[in-house]
Amino acid sequence: MTKAIRGGITAPKGFKAGAVNCGIKKRRKDLALIYSDVPARATALFTTNRIQAAPLTITRDHLRNSRAQAVIINSGNANACTGKRGLDNARLMAKLTAEQLGIKEEDVLAASTGIIGKPLPMDCVEKGIRKLVPLLTRKEGREAAQAIMTTDTSVKDMAVKIQLRDKKIRVGGMAKGAGMISPHLATMLCFLTTDALISRQGLRKALRNSVDKSFNSITIDGAMSTNDMVVILANGLAKNDEIRDRGEDFSRFQEALDRVTLYLAKMIVADGEGATKFVEVKVKNAKNLREAKRAASYIANSNLVKTALYGEDPNWGRIMAALGQAGVEVDERKVDIHLGGQLIVRGGVGKKFDSAKIKKIMAEARIEITVDLKLSPHPYPQRDKKGEATFWTCDLSEDYVRINSRYPT
Amino acid sequence: MTKAIRGGITAPKGFKAGAVNCGIKKRRKDLALIYSDVPARATALFTTNRIQAAPLTITRDHLRNSRAQAVIINSGNANACTGKRGLDNARLMAKLTAEQLGIKEEDVLAASTGIIGKPLPMDCVEKGIRKLVPLLTRKEGREAAQAIMTTDTSVKDMAVKIQLRDKKIRVGGMAKGAGMISPHLATMLCFLTTDALISRQGLRKALRNSVDKSFNSITIDGAMSTNDMVVILANGLAKNDEIRDRGEDFSRFQEALDRVTLYLAKMIVADGEGATKFVEVKVKNAKNLREAKRAASYIANSNLVKTALYGEDPNWGRIMAALGQAGVEVDERKVDIHLGGQLIVRGGVGKKFDSAKIKKIMAEARIEITVDLKLSPHPYPQRDKKGEATFWTCDLSEDYVRINSRYPT
Repeated sequence: MTKAIRGGITAPKGFKAGAVNCGIKKRRKDLALIYSDVPARATALFTTNRIQAAPLTITRDHLRNSRAQAVIINSGNANACTGKRGLDNARLMAKLTAEQLGIKEEDVLAASTGIIGKPLPMDCVEKGIRKLVPLLTRKEGREAAQAIMTTDTSVKDMAVKIQLRDKKIRVGGMAKGAGMISPHLATMLCFLTTDALISRQGLRKALRNSVDKSFNSITIDGAMSTNDMVVILANGLAKNDEIRDRGEDFSRFQEALDRVTLYLAKMIVADGEGATKFVEVKVKNAKNLREAKRAASYIANSNLVKTALYGEDPNWGRIMAALGQAGVEVDERKVDIHLGGQLIVRGGVGKKFDSAKIKKIMAEARIEITVDLKLSPHPYPQRDKKGEATFWTCDLSEDYVRINSRYPT
Repeated sequence: MTKAIRGGITAPKGFKAGAVNCGIKKRRKDLALIYSDVPARATALFTTNRIQAAPLTITRDHLRNSRAQAVIINSGNANACTGKRGLDNARLMAKLTAEQLGIKEEDVLAASTGIIGKPLPMDCVEKGIRKLVPLLTRKEGREAAQAIMTTDTSVKDMAVKIQLRDKKIRVGGMAKGAGMISPHLATMLCFLTTDALISRQGLRKALRNSVDKSFNSITIDGAMSTNDMVVILANGLAKNDEIRDRGEDFSRFQEALDRVTLYLAKMIVADGEGATKFVEVKVKNAKNLREAKRAASYIANSNLVKTALYGEDPNWGRIMAALGQAGVEVDERKVDIHLGGQLIVRGGVGKKFDSAKIKKIMAEARIEITVDLKLSPHPYPQRDKKGEATFWTCDLSEDYVRINSRYPT
């Protein structure tokens, strides 16, 4: 029922964006601003890494009233592991932005991505912010999405609309490259905007649900950054009846948000460093959802599974070993494994397969691995998804090592 | 107080070994036998992978009386994920060996390493066992160590002696390549022998302690195999007063066993696939030993830390990020990081360092990373090691990917 529409974060009503090069990077844009015409309901989810970058502390602080009107983001410097000075700089970034916009400092959120451990060049950032504010327009959504990229090779943005009971609402989003993917660089960042009017509880619940099924279900290298952040701003300009945290309108909003986050998450995996394949790992009929997710994540994170995928090798022994390592309930004698729809393991034992067909499957740019633990009464009714989870990952190539072992200093 | 002596598993009194090619591999030896002149106290530790190879089931079963006299090991085929037939074959391996040796089937342990998911060629194995038994001699220790290799590039064996209160005793051992390191191949195997007389409880306790500090403190690719096994046989032929599970003699025995297992564990890491560097990761002053170990293992397992090491990049941001991901108690503002003795992070913030000196350190084949969390009253008295743990790992190179993505079928 959602419909994809043009644009990204500025597709919902009342959002503007801008992007400039402020000099952190040499030439490419490195400073982006998202602005809502009116203060918006806002919430965010942060990395669970115990080492957290300075802007996360400031943004968390500014979100205590669940309200924000702007987000200032720089790339090229993570402002992480920078001590008290880092905190001062992150706060200053928000303050300067607020001054230029004529809004409250507490209504500005901040995010950073890039080199860990170096102070932000605040003179550059200050000049950048001054340049940025007069440039704000609805047309600059994609420019902003570009300005937050680090080693990403593609711009990642998306927008959808959906009909609520009374009004149409829009959800937009932009994201940047996954995990800790580049020398000294960190971060998965995602910024979401919507013109829906939604309660604080509803917004938070929808964001949690969406992130769980998207950004928390992808992996490139198993690394969690110090800067990961997903932020959503809902400015209410669609003037719909307020969405609560349940009911038909909530479900529709959830559907729209899911579509945007899942699309962005998959784009991140497809753009993984050195990746040549996009891989979907589905685990079915595990003891419960938590165990299904854990099993899928172990398979998706295994260097041995990922190198085999790169080598186009249908090495199911590595899938079994990774599954066993997950520590979830598994009865080896029940396990079925499918590669691209072809059954290659039945009841824990390798099955003769058509090797030409499997070779063709393994050569595809997109591969599906399905592991059926058959722990529950089988088959499940079609729509009962408990004990089932999907993870998205990419293969591990020499290029991943090359990119991550060579750095430009 | 331990002294290295010549030989490996056959250095202790009353142990013989043999090795042949039985045809699982083309030319290289692939079947090894360890034999004690008298039945020995025996115990073993197994992989915690939920998927376990058939020989583990048989060996566990045969060790219920804590007694064994022989171990039969094949390489080239893991006998894992082989269903009921695999169990029958593993039992048959033990039975055939027992018949040839004229001992009880229950006194023979079995181990396998190699391809997952293919049936053992039992005709080869049977012929091999017949050839093997007449060849048993004290001189074949190293041959046996060679026969259990898969992609290892070096033979791994070692022996030591130590003076107890009454008698000298010897401990020998052999091991093969770490983790799941090669296409379709699995396994870390270690076989230990001693002529010490030691109680069942003492032997089990000493093995657990040793493995904890050695094989459970190394990583190459974070993968845990379906076949991992550490076995020890103690035949008592040194005729010492029985060692109990505490006291001076126990401590000395522990010391000897530790030296052998740690040496073998480090050899495994140094021989990691594609490894160019041997890396020691030490975490100090964590909240407790468990958290120290967890933090060290996260740093040692991080693909990003490992690729940086390969690139000789003193990328401490990745060390901080891996530390934060471990989920242990950490106060960023307290963390110190040393690379090869040089302080590069103080109180969570990068410190100016002598880049020529750091460059030299990073270029070494052996690198030490020390992370001091300074959580406890600092400095600790010298001998108080709680909150301190060491992990050994290697770097991640393009060769790792190359080796693990290309396979010979």
